Amino acid sequence: MADYIESLSRLSEQFAKLGGVGRKSAMRMAFSVLELTEEEVEEFAEAIIDAKRKIHLCPICQNLTDREICRVCDDEERDHSLVCVVSDAKTVMAMEKVREYKGVYHVLHGVLSPLNGITPDKLKIKELLARIDKDAVSEVIVATNADVEGETTAMYIARLLRPLGVKVTRLAYGISVGTDIEYADEVTLYRALQGRRDV
Amino acid sequence: MADYIESLSRLSEQFAKLGGVGRKSAMRMAFSVLELTEEEVEEFAEAIIDAKRKIHLCPICQNLTDREICRVCDDEERDHSLVCVVSDAKTVMAMEKVREYKGVYHVLHGVLSPLNGITPDKLKIKELLARIDKDAVSEVIVATNADVEGETTAMYIARLLRPLGVKVTRLAYGISVGTDIEYADEVTLYRALQGRRDV
Repeated sequence: MADYIESLSRLSEQFAKLGGVGRKSAMRMAFSVLELTEEEVEEFAEAIIDAKRKIHLCPICQNLTDREICRVCDDEERDHSLVCVVSDAKTVMAMEKVREYKGVYHVLHGVLSPLNGITPDKLKIKELLARIDKDAVSEVIVATNADVEGETTAMYIARLLRPLGVKVTRLAYGISVGTDIEYADEVTLYRALQGRRDV
Repeated sequence: MADYIESLSRLSEQFAKLGGVGRKSAMRMAFSVLELTEEEVEEFAEAIIDAKRKIHLCPICQNLTDREICRVCDDEERDHSLVCVVSDAKTVMAMEKVREYKGVYHVLHGVLSPLNGITPDKLKIKELLARIDKDAVSEVIVATNADVEGETTAMYIARLLRPLGVKVTRLAYGISVGTDIEYADEVTLYRALQGRRDV
């Protein structure tokens, strides 16, 4: 039918561009769009454009935000001397669900992987260093995944920050090795936070 | 994070409205949108609005189309005296993949289900009757699923059309009972077409 209804197959191709969406799911979603009302469809289209236009990186923590400064950085109740370093915005989302973490974040937008060309200058490490002095950071929790690249990144950051008198810790291995932090359940994440250890 | 990035959670809610998309998948897709370029995002939004605005029912077969008359009905090479009756547009898509069917279609937009209030007047049966005479239809293949509602619909159509001298057949049970026709593989569908039998 792809050949029969051009606008439908064009829409299905758009869905297929999104990460983790297969050809069949994309077609199913395209059909679903036809079942929405005209207003719902316009709202959908607007939400897509809106998200893309409004969302940018917070100038402080580099997390995604649609405000000038993200809500976490803008929150005076949070402890700005405690910084949790994560690889991406999805991990911030997982951490925030714990509701026990009162510090702030720093999003690296990746992990070190020299073989794939991801060297320190490709990550937001320069921005992290700039915060250490400015915000009087006393502890940095490196919450990267427990794989080779995540550990390498943690080691790199530890070696960089320790001479500056910053305590560098790592999430405890409550998180089972091989699991993405993004998918860890809240209790496991909470335990990992409590049992964090020096690198 | 839903609380932290409004436009992202709004977008994720839009994805979650689509059939078969869960909360986590919706959020993953919303993040994916941010990775597209500005032009891709605009193309996406346009494709959504475009599909909804352009796609309507073919006045002849009631299938979805973005042309005045759908490509199948508009194709003079096809046998307009052979009509395959299906419950929805997705089944037409599956049938077209066989590439062996040279007749035309009629989309009922549902199957009979009196308990759920789906009576014959809720389906495009009136439109099917109108075609019988006009297009000199000699055979109707009822390709509804092999469940109670699909069988009931087939029986109803058979009883309606036989008195008009139309041969009414059913897809052969090459399709395993319990499987949606939409998901049958091409070979199975081809065999089912070849072995169709009188109702």
